[in-house]
Amino acid sequence: MGMENRYVTIKDNIAAGMPTESSFELRSSRATPLAIEGGSLGSQQDVLVKNLYLSVDPYQLNRMKKFSSSQKSAGFASRVLPGQAIDAFGVGRVVASNNGEFKEGDVVAGLLGWEEYTVVKSGGNMLTKVDLTCGFPLSYHASILGPSGLTAYAGFYDVCKPKMGEKVFVSAASGSVGSLVGQYAKLSGCYVVGCSGTKEKVDLLTQKLGFDDAFNYKEEPDLKSALQRHFPDGIDIYFDNVGGKMLEAAIANMNIFGRVAACGAISEYTGESAPAAPDVLDVIYKRITIRGFLAYDHLHCQAEFMSTTSEYLRDGKIRVLEHISQGLESIPSAFLGLFRGDNVGKTLIRVSD
Amino acid sequence: MGMENRYVTIKDNIAAGMPTESSFELRSSRATPLAIEGGSLGSQQDVLVKNLYLSVDPYQLNRMKKFSSSQKSAGFASRVLPGQAIDAFGVGRVVASNNGEFKEGDVVAGLLGWEEYTVVKSGGNMLTKVDLTCGFPLSYHASILGPSGLTAYAGFYDVCKPKMGEKVFVSAASGSVGSLVGQYAKLSGCYVVGCSGTKEKVDLLTQKLGFDDAFNYKEEPDLKSALQRHFPDGIDIYFDNVGGKMLEAAIANMNIFGRVAACGAISEYTGESAPAAPDVLDVIYKRITIRGFLAYDHLHCQAEFMSTTSEYLRDGKIRVLEHISQGLESIPSAFLGLFRGDNVGKTLIRVSD
Repeated sequence: MGMENRYVTIKDNIAAGMPTESSFELRSSRATPLAIEGGSLGSQQDVLVKNLYLSVDPYQLNRMKKFSSSQKSAGFASRVLPGQAIDAFGVGRVVASNNGEFKEGDVVAGLLGWEEYTVVKSGGNMLTKVDLTCGFPLSYHASILGPSGLTAYAGFYDVCKPKMGEKVFVSAASGSVGSLVGQYAKLSGCYVVGCSGTKEKVDLLTQKLGFDDAFNYKEEPDLKSALQRHFPDGIDIYFDNVGGKMLEAAIANMNIFGRVAACGAISEYTGESAPAAPDVLDVIYKRITIRGFLAYDHLHCQAEFMSTTSEYLRDGKIRVLEHISQGLESIPSAFLGLFRGDNVGKTLIRVSD
Repeated sequence: MGMENRYVTIKDNIAAGMPTESSFELRSSRATPLAIEGGSLGSQQDVLVKNLYLSVDPYQLNRMKKFSSSQKSAGFASRVLPGQAIDAFGVGRVVASNNGEFKEGDVVAGLLGWEEYTVVKSGGNMLTKVDLTCGFPLSYHASILGPSGLTAYAGFYDVCKPKMGEKVFVSAASGSVGSLVGQYAKLSGCYVVGCSGTKEKVDLLTQKLGFDDAFNYKEEPDLKSALQRHFPDGIDIYFDNVGGKMLEAAIANMNIFGRVAACGAISEYTGESAPAAPDVLDVIYKRITIRGFLAYDHLHCQAEFMSTTSEYLRDGKIRVLEHISQGLESIPSAFLGLFRGDNVGKTLIRVSD
């Protein structure tokens, strides 16, 4: 006997293009081994977590497709099966534990799911205890202090290896990762320009986040010219969250020894934008490096990332943008909003208080 | 008064597509300061070289165009002006010298030109004396021991950072650089497959150069499938000399943490092949690095490259492929042959004995 656990799933694998809300459904299950009352779980080492904040990320679309090249490449991008709960990063509270490392009441962060409760299996090695003494809002541990933050930090410092004064371009700059990359870059003495999809976001970048400049890519008929205008001395680092034409334009405007951190390609996920075809001659003659990366290959940066970012937060040097929706029911809409550009900063779902 | 100096030049900058022999002409000049008889040259430090072997390279096409993105990026890819001699790597003999480092009769290698005589300016810092005691044919110093060799060596070892047992794919594998990359890779314990454009070349790769396998790309309707067949366990390193569809197919077949050395894109130089549009999702999820490089950024490898390669040559562990034409007159045809795939190995012109 388990108690009820509601979760969000896909009805079927998503074929191509943009999914719709009807692609998703909210289900309920009693089959999970949630013997909370007795405090006992099925397997040794299992931890039962009541989810508080859940992350909603664009890459999950690639997992929902019938086939995506990403699915065979990275453990965490494995195909999502229709009818099953979809795992996602989040913050929750331990309600039962067979694991000596975690006890009831602990606040934890890790791989949970788009559901009310998650049983974290075998030792919970994906789970970490949240240090409540730091006093940050709990949601931060699923946004700036979670994988999005590490992605920005490791991608910028470990992949791009910035030098003071370098010119940095960030696409999807008001998104969860881009907004942090731009701020890290400014704090490291770089010149930073971001692009985004609305006037409000562009204003946010320059007026609130300290970007040197920003532009609305939807108002630019020629992205190469737009970048040439914003980078008369060329781009040294491009932190790419979108792929497609913007990647081509950035390569065309890069300086010698330029670096591209390929973090995301949201313009290509829905199949609506053609894949980027950057000029290979530029890549060769300008000795450009394009490097795809995933945060979890950079866990050696984790401690530095946490201490540096926490300090920036305490000193008010970095701003946190969160786009929080209420309740599991809001997941489909929040998820689709990522592709429409509805979000500013990190998209989170508050599942429970 | 100078003596006659014949040289090859372009009549006009090449607009697009494939040039023809009529794009070139052989001119003669008496204007160069070739006061050989007196042994005196115009400026201090100048060295007058009688050219023996000259290199003919695909990248020179990009310099001959009205505009190529390469021209603004790398000093040595600057635009070639119609009517002027075209600089090119080569081996020659000093016939007069104002520079204490070189004396009459010295055999030298360095940046010369598609001409009979070259005046190497200001200190000849691009010029090195050839060590004749090693006993290699002089042409080797313009092929395997010249920039093509360093490109192969540095590109493979310094850019790709191979590990024993890794799977290596080389395109244009019977060309000047590819044929060496494949041999270096085999000597480093890698599994190596090359592609080329004729049956004869394919046979050469497996039967003479020790490649594990090879295929004729012109007979493959689907390059992705071809690579999947030849690399059932995926590609770890792709040494790219061609760009275009082959680059896309290689990325699709790469393993996690795969590396692409972007060395050349001959399929794109003539504008006849569409630029490569590799799947950015592959790049991200497989954490692929694509790195453009030029040999002259890797001069720190020069000493190691020379000693290792000389040793391989003395031990008969590496084979040298040279495609030598006779006389300046043969330059246009030899140059165009690079794009038709006429050459096997390094294309050189013997200007004088």
